Amino acid sequence: MLTDIEIAQRVKPKRIGQIAAELEIQDEELEPYGRFKAKLNDSLYRRISDRKDGKLILVTAINPTPAGEGKTTTAIGLGDALAKIGKKVVIALREPSLGPVFGIKGGATGGGYSQVIPMEEINLHFTGDFHAITSANNLLCAMLDNHIQQGNSLQIDPRRILLQRCVDMNDRQLRQIVCGLGGKANGVPREDGFCITVATEVMAIFCLAKNLSDLKKRLGNILVAYTKNGEPVYARNLKAEGAMAVLLKDAINPNLVQTLEGTPALVHGGPFANIAHGCNTVRATRYALKLGDYCVTEAGFGSDLGAEKFMDINCRLSGLKPDAAVLVATARALKYNGGVPKTETAKENIAALKAGMENLGAHIAGLKKYGVPVVVAINRFESDSGDELALIERYCHENGADFALSEVFAKGGEGGVELAKKVCGAAERESDVHLLYENDAPITDKIETVAKEIYGADGVTYTQQALRSLGEIESLGGNQLPVCIAKTQYSLSDDPKLLGRPSGFTITIRDAKLSSGAGFVVAYAGNILTMPGLPSHPAAERIDVDENGKISGLF
Amino acid sequence: MLTDIEIAQRVKPKRIGQIAAELEIQDEELEPYGRFKAKLNDSLYRRISDRKDGKLILVTAINPTPAGEGKTTTAIGLGDALAKIGKKVVIALREPSLGPVFGIKGGATGGGYSQVIPMEEINLHFTGDFHAITSANNLLCAMLDNHIQQGNSLQIDPRRILLQRCVDMNDRQLRQIVCGLGGKANGVPREDGFCITVATEVMAIFCLAKNLSDLKKRLGNILVAYTKNGEPVYARNLKAEGAMAVLLKDAINPNLVQTLEGTPALVHGGPFANIAHGCNTVRATRYALKLGDYCVTEAGFGSDLGAEKFMDINCRLSGLKPDAAVLVATARALKYNGGVPKTETAKENIAALKAGMENLGAHIAGLKKYGVPVVVAINRFESDSGDELALIERYCHENGADFALSEVFAKGGEGGVELAKKVCGAAERESDVHLLYENDAPITDKIETVAKEIYGADGVTYTQQALRSLGEIESLGGNQLPVCIAKTQYSLSDDPKLLGRPSGFTITIRDAKLSSGAGFVVAYAGNILTMPGLPSHPAAERIDVDENGKISGLF
Repeated sequence: MLTDIEIAQRVKPKRIGQIAAELEIQDEELEPYGRFKAKLNDSLYRRISDRKDGKLILVTAINPTPAGEGKTTTAIGLGDALAKIGKKVVIALREPSLGPVFGIKGGATGGGYSQVIPMEEINLHFTGDFHAITSANNLLCAMLDNHIQQGNSLQIDPRRILLQRCVDMNDRQLRQIVCGLGGKANGVPREDGFCITVATEVMAIFCLAKNLSDLKKRLGNILVAYTKNGEPVYARNLKAEGAMAVLLKDAINPNLVQTLEGTPALVHGGPFANIAHGCNTVRATRYALKLGDYCVTEAGFGSDLGAEKFMDINCRLSGLKPDAAVLVATARALKYNGGVPKTETAKENIAALKAGMENLGAHIAGLKKYGVPVVVAINRFESDSGDELALIERYCHENGADFALSEVFAKGGEGGVELAKKVCGAAERESDVHLLYENDAPITDKIETVAKEIYGADGVTYTQQALRSLGEIESLGGNQLPVCIAKTQYSLSDDPKLLGRPSGFTITIRDAKLSSGAGFVVAYAGNILTMPGLPSHPAAERIDVDENGKISGLF
Repeated sequence: MLTDIEIAQRVKPKRIGQIAAELEIQDEELEPYGRFKAKLNDSLYRRISDRKDGKLILVTAINPTPAGEGKTTTAIGLGDALAKIGKKVVIALREPSLGPVFGIKGGATGGGYSQVIPMEEINLHFTGDFHAITSANNLLCAMLDNHIQQGNSLQIDPRRILLQRCVDMNDRQLRQIVCGLGGKANGVPREDGFCITVATEVMAIFCLAKNLSDLKKRLGNILVAYTKNGEPVYARNLKAEGAMAVLLKDAINPNLVQTLEGTPALVHGGPFANIAHGCNTVRATRYALKLGDYCVTEAGFGSDLGAEKFMDINCRLSGLKPDAAVLVATARALKYNGGVPKTETAKENIAALKAGMENLGAHIAGLKKYGVPVVVAINRFESDSGDELALIERYCHENGADFALSEVFAKGGEGGVELAKKVCGAAERESDVHLLYENDAPITDKIETVAKEIYGADGVTYTQQALRSLGEIESLGGNQLPVCIAKTQYSLSDDPKLLGRPSGFTITIRDAKLSSGAGFVVAYAGNILTMPGLPSHPAAERIDVDENGKISGLF
C-alpha cells in the first residue's frame, strides 16, 4: 500500500492559475506562491461580495479516539464527491501547524486518495501565514518587555503579564522559563513561558478578522497585562497593533490549493479547538461561499468542542450559518467508545458497538440543538461487518440523522458519492439554524448552557480562582462575549477517561481568561497544554530530502 | 523630499516574469512569490552552470560612522549605472533581518533612487527564508533538549550546550534565560539564551552551502554540545540534519527582485559580519555570475570585517574571485573619522578630512593585499566642498586606487555612470587576486595575519579562555579552517573609540568558537551582542497599514 506522501507525489497537479481560472478568478486577483499555491487578494472579494452565498457544510466528528475517525479526509473526499455529482464546490480547511509535523501527528492534509496538495508544502511553511503570526505575537511581546525596560511608564506589573511568546515547534523546554536575566542591560527578570503558535490569541484573531481594519482593531484589543494598580493594559496601549497588522497584511489573504482530484480548496488559519475556536479563517469560508455553490468546511476535535465553537463563536461573530453538518465516525471508534481496546476494534463486537454508539447519539443530539440537519458519515474499513453497519444506520435514523458510508480514503471522490447526495438532500431541506445562547446572558449561564445541552453534564462547579477571574472579566466588559470552553477532546465530560455517553457528572471550571481581541471568554475545564512536547523518537529523525529536493518520511 | 518608501511606492514595477524573461529564464525555472518576487530553482542553475562567469564586483566601505556611508545604496546604484552603460548586470545582496526593521535601523534595501523593490516585502517576510532558518535552528534545539529529556543516551552535559534558540526579533529579554522549569514533565532546567536569527550558524551555513546535499552535510556538522566526558556532539548525532534540510529546501533557492530602474537583483541570505562572514549566499552570487556579464555584490560593515571575510572565508570556501572592489565613503564620514562630531560634518574642514582620510587609506591598503583593483566611490552630499573632493581624489590616486563621485541616492543609475565606467576599467585590468593565508597555517597565525595586515595591529594577545578554546578547537580538527574574527565594526582596532587609522595597538582575543558546520573558527575580539534590543521608542510604534493594505512608517 502506498503512503500518503507517495500517493500525493504521483499526482500531476494542475497549475494554480488553472484552478483559479476554473473559478473565474482574474489574474490580478491572484498572488501565486510557487506554481501550485496562491493567495486570493482583497480585490477578488470586493468583486464577488454581492453574490449569493453557496451552501455551507460543516464536517465534524465524534470524540477522537486512537482508532482514528478521518474527519479532514472525509471533508476533502466529500468536496471531491460533490464535484463529481456536478456541484461547484470549494473546500475550506485549517492549515497544519509545523510543530506536530516533526512530532508524531504527521500531516493534516487528509489521507489516502482524499488529500489536498502540494501536501509537503502545506505541511511545512506553506505561504508563511503561521510564521507571520509568530512574528506578530513575538513583536508584541518584545515591545511589552521593552516598555518595562525603558522606564515602564504604563506601570505594568511584571508578575501579571498574560501574553506569552510563541514558536511553531513542539518544545516543552520553553513551557516554563525565567527571562530577563543577566543584569540591568538585559531586561527585567520575570517568570514566563512559550506556547505553540496555534495557541496564541493572534491566531484566533487572524481567523475571526473580517478585514485588515477589523484585524488591527482586534489586535489592539488584546489584553496583555495588568498594571501595578490592577488596571488592564491592551496591545494598543503599547502602540503595537499597526506594526502587527503590517506583519499580517498578506497572511490574511486566503490560500488557494487543490485536492488530488483538482477540486479547489482554501486552506487558511488553524487555531486550537479548546482554548480557541478551532476553525479556519472566516475570510476563507466567506470566499468559498461566494466562489462555489457548496463550501465544505471542518471544525476541530469532536462536535462538543469544534462544532459548538463553530456555532457559538465563529458563526455568532461572523454571521455564517451552516446548511448541514456531517458527523464523521468509524465503527472501530464507536467500539472503542464501547470499551474495546484499540487492538481489538477490528473484530465484530455488536455489544460494544451498541454501547459506543451512545457517543454518536450525543453528538447527533448536540448538533440538532442548533437546528442543523445532520448526516452521519461512517468512514468504512474492510473489517466492518454488515451487521455492524446496519446497526449504525438504523441508530442514526432513529436519532433523526441521515446516514451514509464513505470510502473516500481508498477511492477519493468516487467513494463519497452516496454521502454527497445525502448532504445535498439535507442542505436543501428547510432548517431553522440558531445559536445556543444569547449574547447578553451572564457568562456562567453561557457555560452552563453548553455544559448541560452539549456535554450532557448535570451542572458546573467553579473554583475560587475561576470565580475571581470571571469577576474580573465581567468588570472589563467580557459579559457580552461568547464562551470558549477549554476541555479535553477525548470525552464529553471533563474527564478524558469517560468514553461513550457519560452521565451524572459535573464540569469543573478552574480558571478563566479574557481573549478580548478575539472576542471570547476562555473557561478552563481542565489543564490545557499550550506547548506540546516531542516523543522519544520524533518524526523529525526520519524526515529527509534527497539531492533533487524529494522529501521522504513526512508521513 | 520624498521618503524611501514613498519613492518606492511611486514606481510601477515590472512583473517578475518579465524581469526573468529579460534574463532568458524559462517559465519552469521560476517560482513566483506574488507578482514581484520569485525564486530561481535548481533546474535553471543546471542549465546555465557551464556558462563563463561574468565579472564580480565587491562593494565594501570604510568603518561605519553615524554619518552614514550608503554602501547598499551604492551597490544598487552601481548596478543600475552598469545597465545604463549597456552591461548585462545582476546585483546580489543580503536580505534584511526583520528585527532591526522594528527597532531603529529601518530598511536594508538601499535608499533614495537606488533601491530594490518591493521594498516593504523585502524588509518584512520576503519569501520566508529567514523564517525557514529560524524553524530549522529551533527544531534542532527542540530535538536536543528532547534528547536529554527522553533519557539522554548521548550523555549530553546540559551545562555545555553551545546551540541557542533564535527569533528574528530584537528581544533583549531573551538574551539570558533559565528554561526547562516546572518539574519533570517540562524538561531539564538549565541556563540558556536566544540569539537573533541572522546570528545563527544555520544562517552562515545557508549562505555558504553549494547545494542541498552540501547544506545537509554542513547542518549535520554543527557542534551543538559536549558530553559529560567532554566529547563533541554534532547535529547529525541527533539525526536532525534531514528534517532541517527539508525546512530549508525551498529557501536555498535565490530570490529574484528588481531595482527601481528594473535591473535584476538576487537578494538572498544575510549573516552577521562579525561572528559570521556577512555576505549574501554563494548560490545567489553564482547564479548572478552566470546570468550577467557583471555581478555587483556587497559585504557587511567596513572592509576590515566584510571584505576580509568575503575573501578569506567566502571566496576560500566557494572559489569565487572578485575582479574589482568598490570602497564606499563620504566626505562627512571621513571628517568624522578625523575627529569632527557628527553634527559638524557638513562644514568644510580640510584638516579633519586629512586626518580622517587615513581610515580610507587603511582600507585601500587592506584590499590591495588581496591583489584586487580598488575604486573609491565617494557618495556625494551637497555640503561637500570642491576642495575636499579634490583632496580625496588626489589621496586615492596616491594610494593606488581609482576614484569616482557617486550621486546614485539622488539620481539613480544616472548618478553612477562615472563610477560604473571606472569599475569596468578596473575589472578589465589584469589582476592577481589571492587569499591572505594558507588553509594549513596554525589558527593563531591566521588571526595574527589578519590583525597585522588588515587591522594594522602590532600583534595579538590571547586570554587564558581563548587559548583553552583554541586548543579544544584544534583537537576537533578546526586548524584547517579559516578564521572569522568578531570585532567591533567602528574601528580598525578592537576599541570602537579609536577612529581614523590607529597604530601601536594589539588585538585581544577573548574566546573562540568552532562553527564546524559553516566551516570557520570564530575568534572573539570583544563582546559581540547576538541579540539586539529595541530602543525606547521602537520604529514599530510608528509603523502602520491602512484599510487598503498601504504601509506607512517603515522608514
